Amino acid sequence: MKTNDPEILFAQACKGDRVSLARMISLIERGTDEGDEIAKLTFTASSHSYTVGITGAPGAGKSTLTSALVEVIRKNGQDVAVIAIDPSSPFSGGAILGDRVRMQDHALDSGVYIRSMATRGHLGGLAVAVPEASRALGAVGFGNVIIETVGVGQVEVEIAEEADTTVVVVNPGWGDAVQANKAGLMEIADVFVINKADRPGVRETRRDLEMMLDMTALKGHRPSIIETVAHEKKGITQTYAAIAEHRSFATSSGLAASRRAARLEKELSRILQAIIAKHVAQSLATERFSKVRSDMTRGLIDPRSAARIIVENQ
Amino acid sequence: MKTNDPEILFAQACKGDRVSLARMISLIERGTDEGDEIAKLTFTASSHSYTVGITGAPGAGKSTLTSALVEVIRKNGQDVAVIAIDPSSPFSGGAILGDRVRMQDHALDSGVYIRSMATRGHLGGLAVAVPEASRALGAVGFGNVIIETVGVGQVEVEIAEEADTTVVVVNPGWGDAVQANKAGLMEIADVFVINKADRPGVRETRRDLEMMLDMTALKGHRPSIIETVAHEKKGITQTYAAIAEHRSFATSSGLAASRRAARLEKELSRILQAIIAKHVAQSLATERFSKVRSDMTRGLIDPRSAARIIVENQ
Repeated sequence: MKTNDPEILFAQACKGDRVSLARMISLIERGTDEGDEIAKLTFTASSHSYTVGITGAPGAGKSTLTSALVEVIRKNGQDVAVIAIDPSSPFSGGAILGDRVRMQDHALDSGVYIRSMATRGHLGGLAVAVPEASRALGAVGFGNVIIETVGVGQVEVEIAEEADTTVVVVNPGWGDAVQANKAGLMEIADVFVINKADRPGVRETRRDLEMMLDMTALKGHRPSIIETVAHEKKGITQTYAAIAEHRSFATSSGLAASRRAARLEKELSRILQAIIAKHVAQSLATERFSKVRSDMTRGLIDPRSAARIIVENQ
Repeated sequence: MKTNDPEILFAQACKGDRVSLARMISLIERGTDEGDEIAKLTFTASSHSYTVGITGAPGAGKSTLTSALVEVIRKNGQDVAVIAIDPSSPFSGGAILGDRVRMQDHALDSGVYIRSMATRGHLGGLAVAVPEASRALGAVGFGNVIIETVGVGQVEVEIAEEADTTVVVVNPGWGDAVQANKAGLMEIADVFVINKADRPGVRETRRDLEMMLDMTALKGHRPSIIETVAHEKKGITQTYAAIAEHRSFATSSGLAASRRAARLEKELSRILQAIIAKHVAQSLATERFSKVRSDMTRGLIDPRSAARIIVENQ
């Protein structure tokens, strides 16, 4: 029997029921009332997960690295959940899950939970849904949550940045480190991984990264630079060690706690904005403002003036 | 003598004064009151630009293609402005303008205007600032505006998508077309460019694109697929012809007009949300809600419940 009851789902998920866990995350993702309730319920639950964000340009090998990291974490006897961010196509609203296929190595392992998330109507978008899902995973017992993004868009960078430890994946070759810098990744990295390090250009990429790190305002911890060949599982234990080392630094220095507080503040702002955006959309959908809107699309009035009229007549 | 007076700047920019034009765009970018005024002033001005969005993964060669297209447009005797979207680094707030150096070929040409834009405090962000800047360029006489994005983030894809004609740049090689699909680019492309077509894999990439187009809900016009080697200026006139062909279709079919109307509706929503978000931020910055915020960061209350308390006490 299917239930959407938040308390029942949560209780069952805590006992290891994956169907209930999957439904919890779906309800959060879709931004339903039950999803909101689950987000509240799992916030106050004692257990919290440690989140690792993995980001980098498309094709850098993030999925392969994530899969290899999952294996190392499991060998260390820990459970791990993976949230793979698949931003929706702007038109179809569908998420493309091709990379997930690679993760099927772990499909039968009960200590691993893998989940794609896309924007499905959650009002605050992924930037709110992901931390909510991540806390829900912590509350049902996953001590580690890896958040892997597909691209380096603003939203994805924000999500990866807001993890406890952020791993930025680049590839060897001229310009890749520069592109990472452009995308704003230099300042959010706690650990750098040069993946596909069997290709030429590793030394130059490392040098570029070191040089850009020298020029960057660091957050009290200079990121390690690890070389990996993820599809051959080379350099993965070193990557794990670098993450563990940053985790230890972040926890003991208070950085983890202050980042968590800052994240909650951002989440609050996003939720507030989402609530208000919903109000605006509802208001716009009524007949009341159809005249000002048609004046605007006919070029008689500019959008700012139209907005002012609507705000003043709310 | 420096002035920020919108009417004076606009009048001077119409006479060809580039300093005044640059200041107009800066005021829009920074979201100042004068910027808002300029946006209103140039909305009702009769002239509007035709916008071409150019997007694709970092490193695909968008800047080089843009520069080569500018040359072709100039040879056809038309003026052209380029807005290069440099999203701010999430920490430093700075835009990195490396690629702009390549555009210096056109620095002395009075029929070309090149401008980087970043998020600098404009409340609606780039998604509002770019169309405002683009209309301002149209109002001072630029019939063509190319909007070139750096990456394929959500905001950048949205901006490119909202051009009159959207060009998506991919490179040959296994997986690039698939990545484009993932990033949601398949459905927004009016023209595909396979740049760096002197490299192996062009045929496979073209086949992948054709296959994905076969599976995609088209907007009434199947995108052309053009092969270019932008740094050798190969395939550029063909790219220009494909853009012109789409332009002609969009104009005659009414697609251009309906897209413009839809864009204005989106812009209105964004401006409304920005106005309200500002209100929320101001409200949060007061002492009134410091208790609920500290309860939240101490883990006593979840962000959704905190948001509800704040909304109910506005």
